[in-house]
Amino acid sequence: MKQVVTVRRRALEASETRAESLRQRFAEAGTLVLNLISSPGSGKTTLLEATVRRLASDHPCAVIEGDVATERDADRLRALGVPAHQILTGGACHLDARQVGAALDQARLLPADILFIENVGNLICPTTYDLGEDFKVALLSVTEGDDKPFKYPAIFARAAVTVLTKIDLLPHLPFDVPAVEEQLRSLNPEGIILQTSAITGEGIDAWCGLLTERLTTKRKRV
Amino acid sequence: MKQVVTVRRRALEASETRAESLRQRFAEAGTLVLNLISSPGSGKTTLLEATVRRLASDHPCAVIEGDVATERDADRLRALGVPAHQILTGGACHLDARQVGAALDQARLLPADILFIENVGNLICPTTYDLGEDFKVALLSVTEGDDKPFKYPAIFARAAVTVLTKIDLLPHLPFDVPAVEEQLRSLNPEGIILQTSAITGEGIDAWCGLLTERLTTKRKRV
Repeated sequence: MKQVVTVRRRALEASETRAESLRQRFAEAGTLVLNLISSPGSGKTTLLEATVRRLASDHPCAVIEGDVATERDADRLRALGVPAHQILTGGACHLDARQVGAALDQARLLPADILFIENVGNLICPTTYDLGEDFKVALLSVTEGDDKPFKYPAIFARAAVTVLTKIDLLPHLPFDVPAVEEQLRSLNPEGIILQTSAITGEGIDAWCGLLTERLTTKRKRV
Repeated sequence: MKQVVTVRRRALEASETRAESLRQRFAEAGTLVLNLISSPGSGKTTLLEATVRRLASDHPCAVIEGDVATERDADRLRALGVPAHQILTGGACHLDARQVGAALDQARLLPADILFIENVGNLICPTTYDLGEDFKVALLSVTEGDDKPFKYPAIFARAAVTVLTKIDLLPHLPFDVPAVEEQLRSLNPEGIILQTSAITGEGIDAWCGLLTERLTTKRKRV
């Protein structure tokens, strides 16, 4: 087993090196990069649609979509005039830095002010893979139940921002928002929590405001 | 890399052997075993609560819960008087046959008419792991969007039964039931599709009827 462990460690180190080189590439391009992670169906693509509708005229956006199968998500973003590249993992449960690097080489995604990387729908596996992003965003739709942060602690502890989505459905659901916020604060005291509904538009201004603020901060720093 | 591949193949073979030995153990016990797979928050535990409330007085049930963290799901079933064992994976994204065997050795789950194995919330990774079950059940909540079967085809192609959950929320959602049924039939022509709401009770009779019918068939065959 020792050789297996060695091979795995080397693979991990190579992956970290690739992520660092992506981070440098993004810094040189002045591009803010987000890694969006959630369960399937939490509304990542729908949030991105609402976001680029609001932002793309002032801030050129680009999208990398990760899915096991179908080009559907990239098509949805392309329909809004945003450059979008679909990575099909064929079965793998997360994106990695190598795939993101290859996507940048293949597709004309940069220059862009903001690059959204929508990871494969999975609340577990994508958590530990660094894609060179500025920060991770976890999405949790209120239809998934209010016990999820403690049941899937790793992602909620690491995400700089957690977005509670589909809050228009709250009147129809037993979902205790303060209880979820308490779990999130306990896992991640510095984390920002936002509430959004892509249908009513609630919270989209605050979310887009956060993105432009982070973009400005990044460009000042570079 | 050759040695890594060999180690992996051996691990896979060992896992298949363990699953076959579990299957034999379940056959000898006359226990129907289901492996429930879905995204986080699709309502697996809630469906199990409704199921044991309906069935457990006539058919002793037992539950194995798989989660990354917390005993919460096992506690919910224990509160209904059902023997439930929690497997905490600590980070792993699926259950395996070894863990299920250890659970059977540790906890008094058998004899039982029906053993429900609730896998870790993940629509990808649990798909290829045989736990010695009679069949897999995929859950898809209608809040997850009507594109999911084609986006996560492996589980929907393998599950003998797909349960569309939370159908009480359909009036508030853009979810095309016929489109989903068409995707499911295309992936899995023999698959059974059920619609349930654990809140209104709709479809729970049909689901429980299917389980008792499968139990009877299994016991006749043994």
